[in-house]
Amino acid sequence: MIIDCHGHYTTAPAAHTAWREAQQAAFRAGERPPPYPAISDDEIRASVEDSQLRLMAERGIDLTVFSPRASAMGHHFGDEAVSAAWARACNDLIARVAGLYPDRFIGVCQLPQSPGVPIANSVAELRRCVNELGFVGCNLNPDPSGGHWTSPPLTDPAWFPLYEAMVELDVPAMVHVSAVTNPSFHATGSHYLNADTTAFMQLLESDLFETFPGLRLIIPHGGGAVPYHWGRFRGLADMLGRRSPAEAVMGNVLFDTCVYHQPGIDLLFDVIDVGNLLFGSEMVGAVRGIDPLTGHHFDDTRRYVDALLLAPGDRVKVYERNARRVYPRLDAALSRRGIC
Amino acid sequence: MIIDCHGHYTTAPAAHTAWREAQQAAFRAGERPPPYPAISDDEIRASVEDSQLRLMAERGIDLTVFSPRASAMGHHFGDEAVSAAWARACNDLIARVAGLYPDRFIGVCQLPQSPGVPIANSVAELRRCVNELGFVGCNLNPDPSGGHWTSPPLTDPAWFPLYEAMVELDVPAMVHVSAVTNPSFHATGSHYLNADTTAFMQLLESDLFETFPGLRLIIPHGGGAVPYHWGRFRGLADMLGRRSPAEAVMGNVLFDTCVYHQPGIDLLFDVIDVGNLLFGSEMVGAVRGIDPLTGHHFDDTRRYVDALLLAPGDRVKVYERNARRVYPRLDAALSRRGIC
Repeated sequence: MIIDCHGHYTTAPAAHTAWREAQQAAFRAGERPPPYPAISDDEIRASVEDSQLRLMAERGIDLTVFSPRASAMGHHFGDEAVSAAWARACNDLIARVAGLYPDRFIGVCQLPQSPGVPIANSVAELRRCVNELGFVGCNLNPDPSGGHWTSPPLTDPAWFPLYEAMVELDVPAMVHVSAVTNPSFHATGSHYLNADTTAFMQLLESDLFETFPGLRLIIPHGGGAVPYHWGRFRGLADMLGRRSPAEAVMGNVLFDTCVYHQPGIDLLFDVIDVGNLLFGSEMVGAVRGIDPLTGHHFDDTRRYVDALLLAPGDRVKVYERNARRVYPRLDAALSRRGIC
Repeated sequence: MIIDCHGHYTTAPAAHTAWREAQQAAFRAGERPPPYPAISDDEIRASVEDSQLRLMAERGIDLTVFSPRASAMGHHFGDEAVSAAWARACNDLIARVAGLYPDRFIGVCQLPQSPGVPIANSVAELRRCVNELGFVGCNLNPDPSGGHWTSPPLTDPAWFPLYEAMVELDVPAMVHVSAVTNPSFHATGSHYLNADTTAFMQLLESDLFETFPGLRLIIPHGGGAVPYHWGRFRGLADMLGRRSPAEAVMGNVLFDTCVYHQPGIDLLFDVIDVGNLLFGSEMVGAVRGIDPLTGHHFDDTRRYVDALLLAPGDRVKVYERNARRVYPRLDAALSRRGIC
């Protein structure tokens, strides 16, 4: 089977998005937000049937690991209560999608992060999503300030309460930033990629995985700049007197395949061990158009991976087995359905 | 001939570096800095003969476009007067190196940037370096705050006074950040690469080169994450309703070859037109070790470029002709020496 590890609910019903706007307006006005709207199953079906589900069928993707829209997490906005209510609403909606299409979507949650608020306060929502909603992982924002980078590095003990819960629950996190308020950055054009590179370098400088050998992180967008500069990172590890990236980081970190052209995918698979790669497309996401050079969608990453003509054992790792290893709760859910 | 467009004076004499420390200590104490020390020609010769000059000879590099140590620019430190004195000291030292070895080094200057200070205040030092010291370009720091990204994007009119002077003087800038004070980032591991990607996306979102058709910028470190994600940037331009990166940006932007492994260089030349590539190594710089996989220095980028077996016309572009086109004052200096 083919599992896409990286899909966001970018097509959520308009009422959901409108409620977020109302919530923000209420916060600015110092008022209580309106009640969350009723959204019917039909509205949810309509929101995915002609987008994610159609494209999954066209591209032969069986299952998407599905999470709330990353750019809309907006952890920088408002306060802890705002983020908590928004995360809960987003996660509940993901659970409804997964409930309507249990063979097509499985949930990953947004955390109710807020700048300056201890990450420990996000653990309850993680537990609710995993234990009550059947989610298999979370998205972790390394910069809830929205492009000002005011949080400590991901390797700082300030983050450990989340890692302890992740290890206990046996769920991974995808390191994924959200929208930016800093005008230097474009969210999907630079901030996302910068965050991926930043996180990797933080991990290379630390002994985080000696402290948490069971912790697993996914760095999306093909690892940011890292595979392209793999020699630089190997050389920097050497300069810093640290173990190689393969030894120090890649036992616990995976990159997805959200790289939107063939040469990038070729390099990714040339440089990074296939055991560290998860198929992903971020469809429907940052780049939705058709590449005039190929006539196919930029984000149809299955075409690029298929074009590699991987050995069968490697192919099944990238498309399925690595995901089942990294998301044990996904593996258990599939096994319960008799998919071994 | 082979021109390395990206070399910093990372081996400057100890007295120079000690003066910077004394300058910083004096600033913190609210005192006047000590006078800049006397540094002999022999000290300068000793600082490069067993490092840059030896490695250039070993690697067959004829000429290095040489600028002050990027990580030591430290524009975030102190105030405008501190940056002005430090830039002047650094640039004067580069001029002495180039004066001692006119066939081997040609100068590019550090600007006396300081957070919140108008870039117009840097123009006098640029003019001094070009007109009096014979320099051929400058390094432009898009984030003088040192990793807090408090300046407007490079496409904001706030930067235009510098661009006007650059166009008038016919010199390019390399977009190059310096050290960081933000603990999220590692200077050479993430901040440098992030800045490259950030600058490119700023340019893709703007019409800067319609305003300044004669402006030329070099994005170092192989363009950060850009070539690896070239499909993403082509797709984002499409999503944003803008011209393609090749049309909107690459008429005025070049990437260097500071990518420290063969697969990265292969991708760079696969994706980016050879007319947009400048040979560079950043030797002696961020990564000084020997790659155990090859037995050669990570930053010996000539090996990677040579291994491409470029057609002769392409080879001469990357090694010489593009540099002479982008740095007309370098071309003029070489022509005066009879090197055509």
